[in-house]
Amino acid sequence: MSEFKVTDRTKVKRGNQRATYDTDTVYKIIDEALVCHVGAKMADRPMVQPTIIWRIDDKVYIHGSSKNGLFAALVKGEEACITVTHLDGLVMARSSFHHSVNYRSVMIFSKATEITDESEKLYVLNEMMKQITPDRFDGVREPNQQELKATSVLQFDLTEVSAKVRTGPPVDDDEDLALPVWAGVIPVTTVMGNPIDDPLWLSNHGKK
Amino acid sequence: MSEFKVTDRTKVKRGNQRATYDTDTVYKIIDEALVCHVGAKMADRPMVQPTIIWRIDDKVYIHGSSKNGLFAALVKGEEACITVTHLDGLVMARSSFHHSVNYRSVMIFSKATEITDESEKLYVLNEMMKQITPDRFDGVREPNQQELKATSVLQFDLTEVSAKVRTGPPVDDDEDLALPVWAGVIPVTTVMGNPIDDPLWLSNHGKK
Repeated sequence: MSEFKVTDRTKVKRGNQRATYDTDTVYKIIDEALVCHVGAKMADRPMVQPTIIWRIDDKVYIHGSSKNGLFAALVKGEEACITVTHLDGLVMARSSFHHSVNYRSVMIFSKATEITDESEKLYVLNEMMKQITPDRFDGVREPNQQELKATSVLQFDLTEVSAKVRTGPPVDDDEDLALPVWAGVIPVTTVMGNPIDDPLWLSNHGKK
Repeated sequence: MSEFKVTDRTKVKRGNQRATYDTDTVYKIIDEALVCHVGAKMADRPMVQPTIIWRIDDKVYIHGSSKNGLFAALVKGEEACITVTHLDGLVMARSSFHHSVNYRSVMIFSKATEITDESEKLYVLNEMMKQITPDRFDGVREPNQQELKATSVLQFDLTEVSAKVRTGPPVDDDEDLALPVWAGVIPVTTVMGNPIDDPLWLSNHGKK
């Protein structure tokens, strides 16, 4: 078991009994996520954008249009705070105050390194595709040079990283335990549904 | 149908064919969300925290520990960027480049107003409870004075607001349409599971 070094920046101040710096826990939270929220200063004002996140070894990556303003700010050296959040449950207590949510979150502070080498960019984008849609990867057309140029890929070190995890039932005050209101957890999960064929796929490849 | 005024700040620059400023669309995206991501400068560095969001009329609210550092920065006047994101589907195209996601997102730029009046704070917190757990509201113990004091409630105007929405199948280049790879959308939904009783509820209220 290895741990990320705790820094002034990543030391969890509130709810620190929920904090963890365990590498495997952090990796697992990132790997299960599709979307992260990336925040940075843009023209000295805050900007938070949702985007796909993926990990290769001890780095994480995001990609977007090479004309994206937030990406431009990050490339110029603005520090990012990248937050990954899984909502796992609604924690229903007997008192309003002790209601909570079960969740797993990771917070990464890092500056971006833009991947400019074409073969590295292709490798990193292919890794994203393989992670999200492994069974289709071989059939999908790879990006061409023009498409690669239109895509900005940013890499972030996982060094200043913390995770927070809450699990389990509500924690009520003793004097509230006898209140006649149900208490427990309502699980929340993200589910993939049945694939919906592209109408053009049907017309090119016949009926199902 | 009413619309939010488009400002320099809220004018969607990339993918603007997906942008909307329609009030009802924005409200619906916020109302369906439990969690938002709040970003702001904290000691001149970016910070993005996940937290519950709820709406009353044309304002949105977040709450947290009165000792939360990000909240303190917001109370001091730092502008927030609050982003709400629903991931609705994975859009699987024939080319790597045209893969996408279906989503609905809202981005709010606003400075916080701290709710300090005790009765207003109680009203706003009760509204959150009623929205999340309406059937249990009457049985839940309201926050007492000490709990109210430990809770910070921040209000944000919905004036600088934009939404982005992507729906539908992939949009591939014509020359890729005949590629023998499946294309379509894999729907992603958030599902509430069967409630899990608090073990202490069971011991106080007998078997199920």
